[in-house]
Amino acid sequence: MSTGVTFPNGFRAAGISAGLKPSGRPDLALLIGDPGTTAAGLFTTNAMAAAPVVLGRRRLADARGRAVLVNSGQANAGTGLRGLDDAAATSAAAAALLRVDPLDVLPCSTGVIGEPLHVTPMIEALPRLIDALAPDGGEGFERAIMTTDTVPKSATASAGGIRVGGAAKGVGMISPNLATMLTFLTTDARVATSDLRSLAEAELKPRFNDLSVDGCTSTNDTVLLFASGAAGGEPVTPDSAPWAALAAAVGEVADALVGQLIRDAEGGTRVLIAEIDGAADDGAARALARAVVDSPLVKTAAFGGDPNPGRILQAVGAADVDLDPAGVDVWIGDAHLVERGTIPPTYFADGALEADARRAMASEEFTIRVRVGDGPGRSRTFGCDLSYEYVRINGEYTT
Amino acid sequence: MSTGVTFPNGFRAAGISAGLKPSGRPDLALLIGDPGTTAAGLFTTNAMAAAPVVLGRRRLADARGRAVLVNSGQANAGTGLRGLDDAAATSAAAAALLRVDPLDVLPCSTGVIGEPLHVTPMIEALPRLIDALAPDGGEGFERAIMTTDTVPKSATASAGGIRVGGAAKGVGMISPNLATMLTFLTTDARVATSDLRSLAEAELKPRFNDLSVDGCTSTNDTVLLFASGAAGGEPVTPDSAPWAALAAAVGEVADALVGQLIRDAEGGTRVLIAEIDGAADDGAARALARAVVDSPLVKTAAFGGDPNPGRILQAVGAADVDLDPAGVDVWIGDAHLVERGTIPPTYFADGALEADARRAMASEEFTIRVRVGDGPGRSRTFGCDLSYEYVRINGEYTT
Repeated sequence: MSTGVTFPNGFRAAGISAGLKPSGRPDLALLIGDPGTTAAGLFTTNAMAAAPVVLGRRRLADARGRAVLVNSGQANAGTGLRGLDDAAATSAAAAALLRVDPLDVLPCSTGVIGEPLHVTPMIEALPRLIDALAPDGGEGFERAIMTTDTVPKSATASAGGIRVGGAAKGVGMISPNLATMLTFLTTDARVATSDLRSLAEAELKPRFNDLSVDGCTSTNDTVLLFASGAAGGEPVTPDSAPWAALAAAVGEVADALVGQLIRDAEGGTRVLIAEIDGAADDGAARALARAVVDSPLVKTAAFGGDPNPGRILQAVGAADVDLDPAGVDVWIGDAHLVERGTIPPTYFADGALEADARRAMASEEFTIRVRVGDGPGRSRTFGCDLSYEYVRINGEYTT
Repeated sequence: MSTGVTFPNGFRAAGISAGLKPSGRPDLALLIGDPGTTAAGLFTTNAMAAAPVVLGRRRLADARGRAVLVNSGQANAGTGLRGLDDAAATSAAAAALLRVDPLDVLPCSTGVIGEPLHVTPMIEALPRLIDALAPDGGEGFERAIMTTDTVPKSATASAGGIRVGGAAKGVGMISPNLATMLTFLTTDARVATSDLRSLAEAELKPRFNDLSVDGCTSTNDTVLLFASGAAGGEPVTPDSAPWAALAAAVGEVADALVGQLIRDAEGGTRVLIAEIDGAADDGAARALARAVVDSPLVKTAAFGGDPNPGRILQAVGAADVDLDPAGVDVWIGDAHLVERGTIPPTYFADGALEADARRAMASEEFTIRVRVGDGPGRSRTFGCDLSYEYVRINGEYTT
């Protein structure tokens, strides 16, 4: 049975080795939907966005994009005008062979920042890549987009005759030299471009923004959502009956991919979830959650399994969000470590509360819950700990 | 000869062991100026500010404060109403023995967040502390304010018959359990409170804000500046001749203390200076500099001595500052690693440029310079690398 991005009908995919990675592992991938496929995307907010991001953003704004050509090995970021030219040329070469409009093949890259795209080997490999396209090519696709990922990442869901599939790569928002989180979702529902954009904004944006390995926003982060229409029937619109089922299936696939991404986080030994409630609005809640999961002191405490409520208070207080210190409560698991802004003196005196928190932190995933008042704002953000391994991966020079 | 905070005339100081630290090391310090001493202060922007910060800020706003009572071991943060009461009570007890108004003794604390102040041993130790006050007590003072500092930190300067001295503690903006950066400066110039506040804003605020060990703003950070007037003569005002010399001497002492703080940074093996120019304004330049020195990917690259220009571009681009990617240039030392937004392909091809950058990074202190355009905004920020030792200090649980 076909999995991942080719689980929905109306898609073909493939992944091959084109010699872009020194290791010789698969490094060139292609996904294409049937004629009539629509697309929507979310891209990095990094001001130094990579060339493929610049082109992809523009083409999707014009309602183009039915296929995506992904290379791993070179990020094509920090490459200036040459990078734009290389991305346009390689995706256009694929389009010519596929006999589709050049603007309909979106370029996507992940790998070393600054190193130019290896244009000639890419173009020479395209006929072989296109020959390999198959309706069960999802697995080959998800392997060829990997960089320092230790496992391929994919997920599927279906609801009311509609299928949704997805593949992702990234060991965090960014990894050492081989940067970037890339995610591709597909559905065989028929969805107009404008509605697909709404779906991406509503179901994908909050989920992928609430994920942080190290607080570093990549130059290449991309989430693409394609709809082939191969399931047939009337277009699914926001006021039609199947919309909710489609949105739920897309959300389910996204949740599964986010979970796979954070569990494969670079050097991470433990998933840390920050749940905020009672903030003035969701934006304030999100800022507080990011402050907690991105704090190096909270992350090292998570690595050590040490509750350290003072560090959580420090992170909350430094988030640059208006709050009443006396309205702040903190829990790790069920252990109530801060009550109305105060760490109970018993925390230091008898150790029972600390032991409860320590027990909660001993698992592979634990939650820090912070209530900051009585407002309606809520947020849930995924992070991970900061380990020796993170320093080793990112600090050791490897030629 | 008297050093540090007692180098200027008109001050007495002392530091003793009061049993507040389990280690038995000195942990209670007092500094007092002659009658007529004026004071100004800068405090943490953390919303969960510690009790002594709340009281100190209020008292200085009322132009009070001639002395400071500092304890190390407990931060008196996250302690609620009890913390305010404890800080007021202990400083008032010192004031009664010193026969000064209770509002004139500022409280200051550093240590474990959440643990209540050890009020009884503090009050019992006060007579001994006050007996020890001496015009050459600066050294005892600077030892008693230390937490995980490996060396005491002090500096002096003089200009035109005016003396300036200072002491500081902190292994970063915040350290593992024993938080906080505290800095105390003294001068024997005669300066009115309002002018002293201007001096602190102009000469101290930028210097202490441009210092980041781990991006974590403590709940207790405090910088206090006292002026005893013991040098005699007319008050020094912003339009009087000695003002510039006084400002320069205060700046010189502050620079020396900032340098001592960053060199003693927790787990730091290397000082990293980010110099930004060409930004729209100084605020934008400061945000860019902080993004560079606080990036865990730049910090681990600094630890490994690996230039990695892509990570610098990533950090600059993610700083949430409007900029033209094609206007960005980056140097490490003299190695020009990014030219108008592009990493030169020769960087990857021949290795000479990388070798130049690597040589610059091999020293104990190196500079990453980023030009982002033609604007007037500039900034210079001090940071440090992220090492295994930082993870060990902050991640290992120690009972």
